[in-house]
Amino acid sequence: MLRVETRGEELSITFGNITLKHSPNKPLLFYGYGEANYSMSHGNFKIEDELFCKIPAKRFNIEDSKIVFDDSVEMKLIVQKDLLVVRLHPLRKFNRLWIRLDAHKDEHIYGCGEQYSHFDLRGKKVPIFVSEQGVGRNRKDFLTLIADFVYDAGGDWYSTYFPQPLFVSSRKYFCFVDGSSYMVFDFSKEDFFELMVWQLPVDLYFSSQETWEELLNKLTETLGRQPTLPEWVYDGIVLGIQGGTDIVLKKLNKVRSKGLKVTGIWIQDWEGRRVTTFGKQLFWNWSYSEELYRDLPKTIEKLKEEGIRVLGYINPFLALEGELYREASKKGYLVRKNDGTEYHVVITTFPAAIVDLTNPEAFEWLKGVIKKNMIDIDLSGWMADYGEYLPADAKLFSGEPAEIFHNKFPVEWARLNYEAVKESGKLGEIIFFMRSGYLRSVRYTPMYWHGDQLVNWSKDDGLPSVIPAKLSLAMSGVAFAHSDIGGYTTLAKNLPERLMSFKTVRTKELFMRWAELSVFEPMMRTHEGNWPEENWQFDSDEETIDHLIKMVNLHVQLKPYFLACQKEYFERGLPLFRPIMLYYDGDEFKIEQYEFLLGRDILVAPVLEEKTIVRKVILPDDEWVHYWSGKVYRGGEHEIAAPLGEPPFFIRKEARVF
Amino acid sequence: MLRVETRGEELSITFGNITLKHSPNKPLLFYGYGEANYSMSHGNFKIEDELFCKIPAKRFNIEDSKIVFDDSVEMKLIVQKDLLVVRLHPLRKFNRLWIRLDAHKDEHIYGCGEQYSHFDLRGKKVPIFVSEQGVGRNRKDFLTLIADFVYDAGGDWYSTYFPQPLFVSSRKYFCFVDGSSYMVFDFSKEDFFELMVWQLPVDLYFSSQETWEELLNKLTETLGRQPTLPEWVYDGIVLGIQGGTDIVLKKLNKVRSKGLKVTGIWIQDWEGRRVTTFGKQLFWNWSYSEELYRDLPKTIEKLKEEGIRVLGYINPFLALEGELYREASKKGYLVRKNDGTEYHVVITTFPAAIVDLTNPEAFEWLKGVIKKNMIDIDLSGWMADYGEYLPADAKLFSGEPAEIFHNKFPVEWARLNYEAVKESGKLGEIIFFMRSGYLRSVRYTPMYWHGDQLVNWSKDDGLPSVIPAKLSLAMSGVAFAHSDIGGYTTLAKNLPERLMSFKTVRTKELFMRWAELSVFEPMMRTHEGNWPEENWQFDSDEETIDHLIKMVNLHVQLKPYFLACQKEYFERGLPLFRPIMLYYDGDEFKIEQYEFLLGRDILVAPVLEEKTIVRKVILPDDEWVHYWSGKVYRGGEHEIAAPLGEPPFFIRKEARVF
Repeated sequence: MLRVETRGEELSITFGNITLKHSPNKPLLFYGYGEANYSMSHGNFKIEDELFCKIPAKRFNIEDSKIVFDDSVEMKLIVQKDLLVVRLHPLRKFNRLWIRLDAHKDEHIYGCGEQYSHFDLRGKKVPIFVSEQGVGRNRKDFLTLIADFVYDAGGDWYSTYFPQPLFVSSRKYFCFVDGSSYMVFDFSKEDFFELMVWQLPVDLYFSSQETWEELLNKLTETLGRQPTLPEWVYDGIVLGIQGGTDIVLKKLNKVRSKGLKVTGIWIQDWEGRRVTTFGKQLFWNWSYSEELYRDLPKTIEKLKEEGIRVLGYINPFLALEGELYREASKKGYLVRKNDGTEYHVVITTFPAAIVDLTNPEAFEWLKGVIKKNMIDIDLSGWMADYGEYLPADAKLFSGEPAEIFHNKFPVEWARLNYEAVKESGKLGEIIFFMRSGYLRSVRYTPMYWHGDQLVNWSKDDGLPSVIPAKLSLAMSGVAFAHSDIGGYTTLAKNLPERLMSFKTVRTKELFMRWAELSVFEPMMRTHEGNWPEENWQFDSDEETIDHLIKMVNLHVQLKPYFLACQKEYFERGLPLFRPIMLYYDGDEFKIEQYEFLLGRDILVAPVLEEKTIVRKVILPDDEWVHYWSGKVYRGGEHEIAAPLGEPPFFIRKEARVF
Repeated sequence: MLRVETRGEELSITFGNITLKHSPNKPLLFYGYGEANYSMSHGNFKIEDELFCKIPAKRFNIEDSKIVFDDSVEMKLIVQKDLLVVRLHPLRKFNRLWIRLDAHKDEHIYGCGEQYSHFDLRGKKVPIFVSEQGVGRNRKDFLTLIADFVYDAGGDWYSTYFPQPLFVSSRKYFCFVDGSSYMVFDFSKEDFFELMVWQLPVDLYFSSQETWEELLNKLTETLGRQPTLPEWVYDGIVLGIQGGTDIVLKKLNKVRSKGLKVTGIWIQDWEGRRVTTFGKQLFWNWSYSEELYRDLPKTIEKLKEEGIRVLGYINPFLALEGELYREASKKGYLVRKNDGTEYHVVITTFPAAIVDLTNPEAFEWLKGVIKKNMIDIDLSGWMADYGEYLPADAKLFSGEPAEIFHNKFPVEWARLNYEAVKESGKLGEIIFFMRSGYLRSVRYTPMYWHGDQLVNWSKDDGLPSVIPAKLSLAMSGVAFAHSDIGGYTTLAKNLPERLMSFKTVRTKELFMRWAELSVFEPMMRTHEGNWPEENWQFDSDEETIDHLIKMVNLHVQLKPYFLACQKEYFERGLPLFRPIMLYYDGDEFKIEQYEFLLGRDILVAPVLEEKTIVRKVILPDDEWVHYWSGKVYRGGEHEIAAPLGEPPFFIRKEARVF
């Protein structure tokens, strides 16, 4: 299957649909040396390279199984079943690589982890660096400028908690770079793609398959699939409530008594809280707060008997005022600066220490904290937050440069949580959900959530952004991801007076439309947001509760279908959320990012605009039964009635889902 | 004086204080190839390089008078009196050059044309590309973000109409690159400076002198000095008035009758006007408007008899609705796109054509328009506006790439105006003033003005920014520059409703403080601003008129001193505005950018802050007579009373100015 051909000064490597070509005028490789500057503000990074040299490969020699370019870079080609590994090794002091791949004019590009703004990445330059997703994420949007001005945190269309140096081409091949440095994948050129990688040696992996299903199977087989998901997530909603035992139980009982199916409550302030200018925030010391939740284990036990699970919260930081910090600091478990002192990072408004996950003892210690303080009191899950804030100039226990470990931090953070669960024998029972991710973290993460969307309707950071996120994750090997119902980030009290006209809070309509989307997510979960009292909540009025009851019932009704889809993922790597183009031709579906297939047989087209009760839906060539009216639609564009409470979705007539 | 030494693989070139060193690990040169992308919005440019290669020079051979690096770049060293010319010629297809110069730790860097934010450029990366100065010019300032959002025109600290690829080192040498491509001068490193140049072949010039005076003499001798300035500029103020003959005369007579010394009126709408969303704008068809100024030549004649000169306005654009456009279009005198059609550029809100100054016929034609329509009706001068908008992807008559001609456009625009005046025999009588400039445009430009400051007190774009601009111009070979009294750019009617709290208009206090600074400029001139009715004007109240009368009288009183300073410039290249460090040691004066010497004997420290009547002044070691109190101060820090109408300035006791 691998063919290496030379003709004079030209080289051509073919493997399935993949072609790597080299000639002195159109080099396959460039190599160089650079020293990068990274600056971080609240998890948003600015990265610049001081490039010493960038040298286009010219001559090549084939020696045994190696191709040597300019006596400078050695390339080995290794075939492992239907995978091609391209192993690049520098023969001199180089740490920058650019590799060019053949591109076709009508080729589309998917994947690269979680991408909120664009599903099809053709025409884009995609940086790969784990970071905050940003607030606004669009420099033509004034809210983004405000977020930049007020918090230095506006972000850009490509900012993401979970980038992945893997792309999938519409020519049915995938390629990934098995490294963790900063990279930029440039899909903007007409006749070639260029992958820039800031580390050498490095391996690239390629696989080419006949069908999408085979390709996704191979992709997830190679990188791993998410662990089993507990079935209880489909038995109702998980309510994000906080404020102490009394408040939590009161809120829970109120909606339960009205008939809302609740499968769990997520108490993010189980460990106590603090108030900052960004809102009410948590006290990062990972044991339950006697003050807010006296006898929490008993409450958990009691609720479990009633069929309601309790979930908590954790992240890899430690509050400087906490007991765990003092212990970790004493034991030397914290990330350091180059001068040897602890690296305290301002996350939102206060500094915190970071546990050094490259230190096996620290890793085991934090894992032990989870086992003892969270699993032993019978929490059924938690948000495993953050993972993006390792400064690129930190000093790590392992000695690995932090700029190279930065992207691996979320992988280790996922592994830590996973092992805590696994070693407690609770896989498939406990669920934790993460926003950060990177290459090979999927296998450790039972559930993702899409992070901190703005509580608005904006394409780049509001409700709509969740769908491209699902689809790009799907093409990156991820099946299970959900969102905060109603979004998270509020711009309110923390705005300067003169900008108060830009106050952005969650409206009732946004909450309801988001819940309608969430029906089709593997986990429905609410979040109060960063300024709870400014935002519309699940219990803000009766109409909202009634609407939510209806939506949760629909979600529960879908349980068997979800379980069938799960099986397709665990066995064959097929994602839950599927781009329509996986099954249907048509140029419009190659770029469609606001409709999706749930499994093979349900097509969902959520309402993503404010103040509308009609949704324009483009259906692929098939017969589709509109769930609410029972009317059968065929391929083409349709205006579908979509009053509140009736999110447009369709069942493929050929299938028998309900 | 030139010494070239080699030792093994090392090379060292010494010329006065200048050292160029090369070794394989610390290359003197890097060469490469790139293709740049330029995008322009309202004269603000975004520039990115697609860099194909960047190769550090390794080996060198000395052949005859040449040094050849890697068989790729040839370097010739030519000594012309006390100038060293370093001539670089590529032997292969390279168009990028990086050259590194030795830097000392405590070295300061000045010049680079007109720099509004920083006089000392050490620590900065300075891009060299002619552009708008931007509105706000500071991304930490919210007004800049608004300007970016509303007009895509916020600019940055280095944005300037008049960049110049020449710097002066505190080690008393200057260096300039005799090219016109985009460049970046990087002074941010501790042990070397790096000049990036996007054109090859190219020449670099160096000169090293014993004293500042010799250095500035040599600099202006090499690049040329400004042409003679008419003496009438010191006889009073030039009032910017517009709106038609009646309004103009009424305003003029009102203040004249109160005793304001007026030497000229500047009628920018002499050619008619149009109203746009940016404000009232001019009709760019360069002949007088019969509608607004019936029989303008007669008015001019009459005013001249009364000792008042009339000035007009011109720029290198043509309004598409105008007669001159039709003529130029027919004759093929306009800048084109690559597809051969005319390139119409949106300047503020409407598109306009650009006269192709590389076409000698078009050049002569536009010069003829000035002679016939402006000089022949006896205008005594004009604002020769713009010069920054040549798109980098335009197609020029001469065939020269527009990305290389872009920076030369203001030079040719200056030459055109200069020749019109010279060929009419009016040098030293007529004055025109420009904001744009570039290497070698100084010799054609009798007067600069600092462009479009914001009508506020901000350091990067308000009143204070004018002083670093003067000082950096001084170190760039320029003597005569002045500013719009009160600033120009208003953010008012054109703001979106929600941003109206950021409305920025000229206050009475700002107008008065600006007039106080302008006393010390070689020309005092008012400007109504882009939204005249929103801004405080010279005749807005009696107190303002009285204050202005006092300031203009002071300016007129300084005439003999100004003339003496002029002489020092024309004969020895000494600028009018002199950094204190030219004459006094002391680290604080190496970076001082908000005080200056006018000539040798007057030290000016204008009030640059709102609502203050005290100015902190740092005086160098000498005896200084405070003009208003007569009190003698010595070196050190002093709090000087500065009520409105008494701008702090000091006369060196040793001198006898008044």
